[in-house]
Amino acid sequence: MAPWTLVSPASRGIGFHLTRHLLRNTSLPVVATARKDVEGVRKSMLEGLKDVDQERLKVLSLDVTDESTISNAAEETKKLFPLDKNHLHLAFCIPGILYPEKSPAQLEHEQLTHAFAVNTIGPMLMFKHFCNFLPKKSTDMSLPASRITLPEQAVWLNMAARVGSTTDNKLGGWYSYRASKAAVTSVTKGEDVFVRQRSGDNAMVMSYHPGTVKTGLSKEFWGGVPGEKLFTPEFAVEKMVGVVGSVGLQGRGKCWDWMLEEVLP
Amino acid sequence: MAPWTLVSPASRGIGFHLTRHLLRNTSLPVVATARKDVEGVRKSMLEGLKDVDQERLKVLSLDVTDESTISNAAEETKKLFPLDKNHLHLAFCIPGILYPEKSPAQLEHEQLTHAFAVNTIGPMLMFKHFCNFLPKKSTDMSLPASRITLPEQAVWLNMAARVGSTTDNKLGGWYSYRASKAAVTSVTKGEDVFVRQRSGDNAMVMSYHPGTVKTGLSKEFWGGVPGEKLFTPEFAVEKMVGVVGSVGLQGRGKCWDWMLEEVLP
Repeated sequence: MAPWTLVSPASRGIGFHLTRHLLRNTSLPVVATARKDVEGVRKSMLEGLKDVDQERLKVLSLDVTDESTISNAAEETKKLFPLDKNHLHLAFCIPGILYPEKSPAQLEHEQLTHAFAVNTIGPMLMFKHFCNFLPKKSTDMSLPASRITLPEQAVWLNMAARVGSTTDNKLGGWYSYRASKAAVTSVTKGEDVFVRQRSGDNAMVMSYHPGTVKTGLSKEFWGGVPGEKLFTPEFAVEKMVGVVGSVGLQGRGKCWDWMLEEVLP
Repeated sequence: MAPWTLVSPASRGIGFHLTRHLLRNTSLPVVATARKDVEGVRKSMLEGLKDVDQERLKVLSLDVTDESTISNAAEETKKLFPLDKNHLHLAFCIPGILYPEKSPAQLEHEQLTHAFAVNTIGPMLMFKHFCNFLPKKSTDMSLPASRITLPEQAVWLNMAARVGSTTDNKLGGWYSYRASKAAVTSVTKGEDVFVRQRSGDNAMVMSYHPGTVKTGLSKEFWGGVPGEKLFTPEFAVEKMVGVVGSVGLQGRGKCWDWMLEEVLP
């Protein structure tokens, strides 16, 4: 069974750099998604990757708020990686939108709906359409050699955030971001229960906090973060792949940060 | 400053019985909300309450998924209870919808959106428009005599659920209900931080798990619940009001169940 990987979305930020990292440091095929301009995204992703077999990269059109694009991408993927011959080994489900409300008066109905659509419901629908690609209990899990440590079991990663920890919240504010990330951490636990039944020890679901990364999502807050705590996307990706490669089955269903410390719900 | 209370929604189930309980056992005015037929709801609420001053009950039209109805109800309430002479002492923000998905394949986009709209975003918008009614630090908090123990501080209660606890989730399933309730528990924490700054010890926010109550929400699951664990709405309301009256400021920001045990996020 040939393993492959999924990065969604991947047009910029962490997803973009993660796709390049996987192309460069593993030999696995990567399905990356972008809302638009898949050809342009593909071209930038491959820029400078001279020793990489370009056929390993597929960029599919997908908008996490539009289920038809998710199911279309899943259908397309089934043709590329038929279920009886392949399994999804690493899935990075990492859409994110941040509306930094400071007080209840700043809550905007449309933004609240959009925050949950992108940060929580989108990942749920992604899992609905892609979880069948995860290995079964009977799947042969042998992996090709790789420059980085890949986990023995398949890992589905949902992007959470430390500020999504209800336990840790001392400052308030950012209501929709915190709540939608708390929600995806809840979903992660339920998805892992499902995967445990379906795949046994061959797959797990976890959520992840990457630290504060220099991407568009956090741009207006870079000023408030000490330099050594504001990560480049390249550093963040390296840490993330490292955690995925080392967390192990005992970490299943939970949220882990870039230092491999648990983030409580 | 005259205290008053809010129950939303109140057309049936827990909200309906809670409204009657407050009318019967306190002398506080109650603002109750219903999506439709406010006159009919008002009439059923008052049925048999012979010694109750009917003027204490106001039933306003409010649909938690339609922000204009929330802001209209808040405007109406301002006329009834001007901010300089009154304060909101008990707010029960308890909308709920349950889609019992058993597997990811059963996730329906529209239902996911609706679950978050009712269980999470609705309560956030309620708080946006009604939090100004909560007392300030300088508010005189004296309370009229009452048959039941009222808390010294104002309490805003969001309805959560034990199955919304990510920590406790061992069974999986019910993805949207669990996640939207985990999200409202997150929101509760943030709202309490806000209220602590604004009201000091004069107000707090908490979330609550009532147990499994014989209402429409849980109807298809009554069969699976042992009789002594399936509560009548009257019993559930008595317990809920009891917890609100006794939890105290040390319980602020957290989720409590009907036995006054903490429900972890």
